[in-house]
Amino acid sequence: MRTGMKYFENNPWLLGEDHFETDWLGKAEAAMYLGNGYMGIRSATEESYVGEKRDTFVAGTFNKFDANEVTELPNVPDMIGMEIRLNQQRLDLTKGIVTNYQRNLDLKTGELLRSFVWEYQEIKAAFTFKRFVSFEQKHLLGQQIEIKNLGANIELEIVSGIDGQVSNSGSQHFTEGDKALAEGKYMQMMPYTSQSNIFFVLSTVHKIAKERDIYEETKKRIEMGRRKIYNRYWLDLAENQTVTIEKISSIHTSIDKETASKTLEEVKEIALTELKEATETGYQKLFEASKAAWDKKVWSVLPISIESKKFKDQLALNFAKYHLHIMTPAHDERMNIAAKGLSGEGYKGHTFWDTEIFMLPYFTFTHPEIAKSLVTYRYLGLEGAHKKAQINGYEGAQFPWEAAWPDDGETTPVWGAADIITGKPTKIWSGFIEQHITSDVAFGIKQYLDVTGDQEFAKEKGYEVILDTAKFWASRLEWQEDKQRYEILEVVGPDEYKEHVDNNSFTNYTAHWNITLAINLYERLQQEEPELFEKLNQKLALERVYAEWQDKVDKIYLPQPNQEGVLPQDDKYLSKKIIDLTEYKNSPHVGTLFHDYNLEQVNDMQVTKQADVLLLLFLFENLFPKKEKLINWNYYEPKTLHDSSLSLSTHAILAADLGKLDLSYDLFNQAMNIDMGENMTSSNEGIHAASIGGIWQMTVLGYGGVRCLNGKLRIEPHLPEAWSKLSFGIVWQGNPLEIQVTKEQFSVRNLGVQEVSFEAFGNNYSVSTEETIIF
Amino acid sequence: MRTGMKYFENNPWLLGEDHFETDWLGKAEAAMYLGNGYMGIRSATEESYVGEKRDTFVAGTFNKFDANEVTELPNVPDMIGMEIRLNQQRLDLTKGIVTNYQRNLDLKTGELLRSFVWEYQEIKAAFTFKRFVSFEQKHLLGQQIEIKNLGANIELEIVSGIDGQVSNSGSQHFTEGDKALAEGKYMQMMPYTSQSNIFFVLSTVHKIAKERDIYEETKKRIEMGRRKIYNRYWLDLAENQTVTIEKISSIHTSIDKETASKTLEEVKEIALTELKEATETGYQKLFEASKAAWDKKVWSVLPISIESKKFKDQLALNFAKYHLHIMTPAHDERMNIAAKGLSGEGYKGHTFWDTEIFMLPYFTFTHPEIAKSLVTYRYLGLEGAHKKAQINGYEGAQFPWEAAWPDDGETTPVWGAADIITGKPTKIWSGFIEQHITSDVAFGIKQYLDVTGDQEFAKEKGYEVILDTAKFWASRLEWQEDKQRYEILEVVGPDEYKEHVDNNSFTNYTAHWNITLAINLYERLQQEEPELFEKLNQKLALERVYAEWQDKVDKIYLPQPNQEGVLPQDDKYLSKKIIDLTEYKNSPHVGTLFHDYNLEQVNDMQVTKQADVLLLLFLFENLFPKKEKLINWNYYEPKTLHDSSLSLSTHAILAADLGKLDLSYDLFNQAMNIDMGENMTSSNEGIHAASIGGIWQMTVLGYGGVRCLNGKLRIEPHLPEAWSKLSFGIVWQGNPLEIQVTKEQFSVRNLGVQEVSFEAFGNNYSVSTEETIIF
Repeated sequence: MRTGMKYFENNPWLLGEDHFETDWLGKAEAAMYLGNGYMGIRSATEESYVGEKRDTFVAGTFNKFDANEVTELPNVPDMIGMEIRLNQQRLDLTKGIVTNYQRNLDLKTGELLRSFVWEYQEIKAAFTFKRFVSFEQKHLLGQQIEIKNLGANIELEIVSGIDGQVSNSGSQHFTEGDKALAEGKYMQMMPYTSQSNIFFVLSTVHKIAKERDIYEETKKRIEMGRRKIYNRYWLDLAENQTVTIEKISSIHTSIDKETASKTLEEVKEIALTELKEATETGYQKLFEASKAAWDKKVWSVLPISIESKKFKDQLALNFAKYHLHIMTPAHDERMNIAAKGLSGEGYKGHTFWDTEIFMLPYFTFTHPEIAKSLVTYRYLGLEGAHKKAQINGYEGAQFPWEAAWPDDGETTPVWGAADIITGKPTKIWSGFIEQHITSDVAFGIKQYLDVTGDQEFAKEKGYEVILDTAKFWASRLEWQEDKQRYEILEVVGPDEYKEHVDNNSFTNYTAHWNITLAINLYERLQQEEPELFEKLNQKLALERVYAEWQDKVDKIYLPQPNQEGVLPQDDKYLSKKIIDLTEYKNSPHVGTLFHDYNLEQVNDMQVTKQADVLLLLFLFENLFPKKEKLINWNYYEPKTLHDSSLSLSTHAILAADLGKLDLSYDLFNQAMNIDMGENMTSSNEGIHAASIGGIWQMTVLGYGGVRCLNGKLRIEPHLPEAWSKLSFGIVWQGNPLEIQVTKEQFSVRNLGVQEVSFEAFGNNYSVSTEETIIF
Repeated sequence: MRTGMKYFENNPWLLGEDHFETDWLGKAEAAMYLGNGYMGIRSATEESYVGEKRDTFVAGTFNKFDANEVTELPNVPDMIGMEIRLNQQRLDLTKGIVTNYQRNLDLKTGELLRSFVWEYQEIKAAFTFKRFVSFEQKHLLGQQIEIKNLGANIELEIVSGIDGQVSNSGSQHFTEGDKALAEGKYMQMMPYTSQSNIFFVLSTVHKIAKERDIYEETKKRIEMGRRKIYNRYWLDLAENQTVTIEKISSIHTSIDKETASKTLEEVKEIALTELKEATETGYQKLFEASKAAWDKKVWSVLPISIESKKFKDQLALNFAKYHLHIMTPAHDERMNIAAKGLSGEGYKGHTFWDTEIFMLPYFTFTHPEIAKSLVTYRYLGLEGAHKKAQINGYEGAQFPWEAAWPDDGETTPVWGAADIITGKPTKIWSGFIEQHITSDVAFGIKQYLDVTGDQEFAKEKGYEVILDTAKFWASRLEWQEDKQRYEILEVVGPDEYKEHVDNNSFTNYTAHWNITLAINLYERLQQEEPELFEKLNQKLALERVYAEWQDKVDKIYLPQPNQEGVLPQDDKYLSKKIIDLTEYKNSPHVGTLFHDYNLEQVNDMQVTKQADVLLLLFLFENLFPKKEKLINWNYYEPKTLHDSSLSLSTHAILAADLGKLDLSYDLFNQAMNIDMGENMTSSNEGIHAASIGGIWQMTVLGYGGVRCLNGKLRIEPHLPEAWSKLSFGIVWQGNPLEIQVTKEQFSVRNLGVQEVSFEAFGNNYSVSTEETIIF
C-alpha cells in the first residue's frame, strides 16, 4: 500500500506524514485533527486544495437543515484557512519543488506542525505552520506561521479571517450573521443556526511581526464578502528575512453554560475581551498553558506504558488517549461522544451505542468524572427515549439508535441512498428496529455504577435509567402462544448485515439481563432505600411493572447452543447459505461484498458485518463456558468481515481471553491501524471513535485482563509475545490502582485509601498497598 | 497587463484563451458562459480547481435563503463537473506539462471547446472537451469529451453525475432532494427550493464509446453521497486509442410553463423520456440543431457587420448579441434580465433599470417579440410596485430598485458589508431612495410602444404602467412653500456616489417627463378610446389623479443650467470640493477611490461614479441644445470615474453625438472590453449586462445614429475614423430596415410592407424600398 504516513521509532508521541498528496488530504485532516471536547477542527492545511474537507464542529450545537432531515452538528465558519501569495503566486504544494516536508501531530501537546521549503519559479521560502486548540481555555485556538525568504526579495500577500462559506457537504446550517470589526483588527462573525437558533460568536485577530523591522506597520485592508470577513496583508520580505504571523481565534455559542444567560451582544464583548488578552499573551504562552493542561488532565493520570518489540504499540495508546479526550465533551453533560468524534461529518455528530460499549469503559475505569457526564447524558435523554417508546407503542425508555441533543429523541435518518436496482431510496432500519441500544445504555450505566461506586449518581439518575429501560423491554416482548414463550421479533442486532431477524441472541440476552437487573434493583431498593423506592415507584409505576417483569422474565426465549455448541445469531442465521469470503476478508477496503451482492442477497448468507454473538460472549463472559466461546469463535470469526470498525477490538480481546495471543495481537495491530495506520483514505469521513476506544480496551481489558464482573473487579493479564511489560492504571471505586504486568507476574499498587478486592485466575486478593501475583 | 485572452484576426466569432491559470478561472467562467435564457451555466472546467465558481442558474427560480435575506437565483446542482483520473492521477493542469492548450467559445454556435495535451509522470494524453447549452431545446445541455492516449496503456477512471453540494457562496437554497436511477444509467435528482418550493428535475446520462472496441461494456459503479449521485467508470486505453464520452443532461422545474400543471413524478418522467431521446440523437445532432436555432433566431435576424481597421469591433458586436440572447429569458414574461445575466451570483439575479436603459433598446429595435416579454414583466410587476409605494406612503406604482419574481416587490438587500471604521453594517439606500427606476420603466415602455407600434400591448398593459407610474410621481413630489414649487428631496440619482441628495436633475426631469406623458395620454385616451379610458379610470382613479397632475406638473422644479451653462447634478453638487482624480481615472481597477476615502468623504466631492447629468442629455436629447451638452460634457466627464459598467457606453454615444468621434471610439474600446477584454479578473462575479447592451447601443444608436425621438425615427450616422462601413438593421413599427453606412453616405432599405418615415440631419425622408443619403 502506498502511504505518506511517518512514525518515529524514538518518539511514541508523534504521528506524522512525510509526503504531501492531494488524494490523501482526508487522512491528516481526520487522524490528526485538533480539539478539546468543546470543539474539533479537522487539520486541513492553511492553503486550499481540491478535495479538502474543512470542518470545525462545536459539540452539542445541533441543527436541522430542513424538516425532512435529522439534526446534525453544523460545520462552523472556518478560521484556519488562509491564502498565502508570494510574488502573487498562491502557495500550492502541487506546484514547484517541495523539500524537507513534514507534518506531525504531537499527541502529548496537541500541537500540529507542518514545515517545508517551497521553490516555485523565482520563489524559494521556508514555511513553518503551527497550531493548537487550547486544552486549557476551551474557546481558544492559535496558529503561528513563519515564512523565511530563502531567495531574492519577495512580496508577500496574506488573506485571512473568518470564512462562513463552508457547509455540511452543501447543507448550510447558518444564517449569514453580522460581521464586525473592532479597532481595525479584531474580526467577528455572529451567525445563528437556522432551526435550533443557537448563536455563534467567532472572533479572530492577527499579529504580524517581521524580523529586523518589527515596528513597521504592515499594509493591510479589511474586506468583506458574502459570509466572509478578512484582512488582506501585504509585506515585502528581503532575502533571509523571516516573518511571523500569529492568528488567535475563539468560538463561543449561546449554549455555552458559562454565558447561558447572556445576549449575543454580551457574549460578543466577552469574546472580544478574551481575544484581546489572548493575543497579548501570544501563541507561545497560550500553547504552553494548553500543553500543561494536557499533562495535568490526561498524561499524568494513570499513564499507560508498553514495552514492546513494536514501537507503534505505545504510539497507539497515546493516539487513543489523545483522541478519546478531544472527542469527548467533558464540559457539558448535555452532550456525548459522536461516532466520528468531532473529526468529520460522518454520522452527523450523533451518539450511538459505541459510547457505552467502546468508549465509556475508558472513562469509567480512568476518568470517572468524565464518565459521569457521559452517563448523565443518557439520564437527560430519558425524555427523548420516552418519546420514542410512545411513538412505537411501547412503555418506558426506548433509547434512540442515534442521539443528538438529549430531548431530540430518535435522530437516525429514515432514508438512505437510492437502491441501485429499483432507483428508490432505501429505508434505514436502525432507528426503528436496532433495539439493543436500550440494554447497551443500561449496561454502560451498570458498569459505571459498579466500577466507580458512585452512589449519588445511582440514586439520582442511574437506577431510574435501569428501571425505565427494563420497563421498555417488558413492553417490547412478544408472547408466542404456540411456543409459550416471549420472543423479540423483527430486529437488527449488532450484525447489521441481517435486517429483520427474530430472536437475535445479543438482543434477547441483553434484554433479559436488563430486566433481571431491574428486578434485583427493585427488590433491593424496596428493602434498603424505601424513600427512593417510593419516589421511583411514583414516577415509573414500578409495582405494576415489577409484576410484569416477574411474570415475563423466565419466559424470555434465550437461544441455546445447537448440538455443535454454536449459539445461533438469530432464528435463521445457521440455516443460511455459506459462501467463500476470502476475497472480501483480504480486501484492504470494507464493504467490498456489496460490489457483488446487494443487501437482500447478503441477508441470505452466513456473513456477519461485525462481532454479534462474539460480542455477547465478551460482554457477558460469565454466562458462557470457555469451551463454548471457542466453538463460537471458530464458527463466527471466519464468517465475519469486520466491515465495522467496532469489530476488530472485540475480536482481539476475545482472542486474548481464549489464549489465542498471536491471533489477538494480529487483530490488535489491525484494529489500532484503522485510523493511525497507513491507509490514506479510510478516515476521510472522520476517525472511528469506537475503534479508538477499542485500542484502550484491547490493552487494559484484553492484555491487562481487567473486567468488572457482577460488580467485582477481575484482573487476569496475559501479554502478547511482543510485549515484555505493560503498566497501566484504573480507578476502582475511587481508589487509583497502578498495575504492572510482565510475562512472569503482575503487581497491583493501590494509591487509594480503601482496600480493593479483586479476583485473578480463580483466586481472590485484597490490596491496600501493593500485591504481586506470579503467574 | 498580463492576460490569457486570445482573439482571432480572421474569425470574429471566436473568443479564446491560450493560457490556463487558476487565478483567471472567473474570466472564462463568466465571459464564455453558456446559456439560452432559460438556463445559464458558467464555463467552469470539468475538473475542479481551487478558486473556481461552478454556477448554474435557471431564470426565475428565485428563493429566499432565510427571512433576513432577499430572494435570489439559486445555484442549481452541477452536471458539468467530472473527475478524470489517468493511472489514478487526477487530471490537473497545474501539474505536469500542458501543450497545445486552447479554450474557445464559438459565439455563432454557442459551443465551448477546450483542448490540450497533458503530460504528467508516465501519462501523455490529448483531451478535447466540447459542450453547449441547447438553443433549440431549452432544457438540454450536452458535453462531449475525447481522450486520446498518446503514451503507454493507461487506466482511465471517470466520476460524473449530478452534484448538489454547490451553493450560493455557502447559502444553500435546495433541499437534498430524492435521487433516482433508471435502467442503471439515467441519473436524476429532484430537489426543492427551500422557501419558494420550486421543484427541479435534473437528469443526466453518459454514453462512452471506445474506438476499436465499441461493444465492450465499460466497467462502472453507481454511487451516491450526500447531495450527489454519480457513476464511476473504469476503462483501459491502449496506446493511440481514443475514448469518447458523451454526457447529455437536462433541467426542468415546476415553474416551466409547458409543464406547469404536472406533478414532480410526471415531470420526472417527461424529463426521462426527453433524455432518452436526446441521448439516442447524440451530441453532434443535438448540437447541429442548436446551432441552426442560433442562426435562425439570432444571426440571420438583422445582422450587423462592421468594416473596421480593428477586427475586434466586429467580434464585440457578435459577443454582445451572443450574451444579450443567452441572458434573456425570452420564453417567459414573468422573468426579466439580471444585471449579471445568468453568469454569476452578483446582484442575485435581480433586474435593475439596466434592462430599460441599456438592454431593452436592443430588443425593442431588433427583436420586438422579446422586448414585449420584457415590458410585460414590468406590467406583471405592478403588484409589487403598488406594494412598495404603499409601504413608503405613496400612491400608484413605485417600481422596486431590484426586482425578482414580479410580485416580490422590492428585493434590494437592506444591509451591506460592515463599515470599516464603526464595524457596523452599512445601510444600502438604493431600495429606499434610488427612485428614478420608476420613470426608467415608463421610459422603456414608451420607447417600446413608439418603436414597435404595438397597440395591443399599449392598450392592455403599457398605458396602464405609464399612468400608474405618473400617479406615483405625483404623490412623491414635495411642496416647498418658500419656493412655491414641487421638489424631490432625499434621493440617490444614477450617480451612486451621492446619497441623500435633493433635486437630482435626472430624477426631477424624468419624473416631470413621466407626468407630462401621462397627461397627454390621458387626454388622448379620453377623446379617442373612451372605453379603455373608462376601464383605466376605474382602476386608477384617473380623473382625480389627472387634476393633481395638472396642478403640479408646471410647478415641478427642473434645475436649470448655471451661468456657465452647467446643469447641476443636484442642489449641492456644484458647491462641493473638486479633487485631482488622475490616479483613480488611470487605475485599471474600479472603486480605488475608496482605498483613500470613505463614502461620507466621497459624498462631499465633485466626483461622479457614472453618467448622471450626461445620461439625461443622451436620453432626452431634444431638451438640451448641443452647446449646452458640450459644456456639460466638459464639466462632468473629467469628474466621472466610470466606476460603473453603465457609464462608458453612454459617454461613447454622447461623444459621438457631439462630434468627438476619436474620443468616442476610445470609449467604445474601453466599454467593449469590460467583459471581452484582457482583464482576467473583472468579470469574476459575472458579466456586465448593461455594458454588453451598451456595445449594441454604441454601434446602432451611437455610430448608426438611430434614435426614437418624440415617437419619430431619426437616423444620423457618423462612423469613427477606423470604420469604413457599418451595416445593421432595425425593425420600425413592424418594418425591417437594413441600414448601410459608409463615410460618404448611408442607405436605408425597407424590407417591410409600409412606408417608413425618418429624419436625418434636419431633413425628413420616407422610404418604401431604398433611400440613400449622401453626407
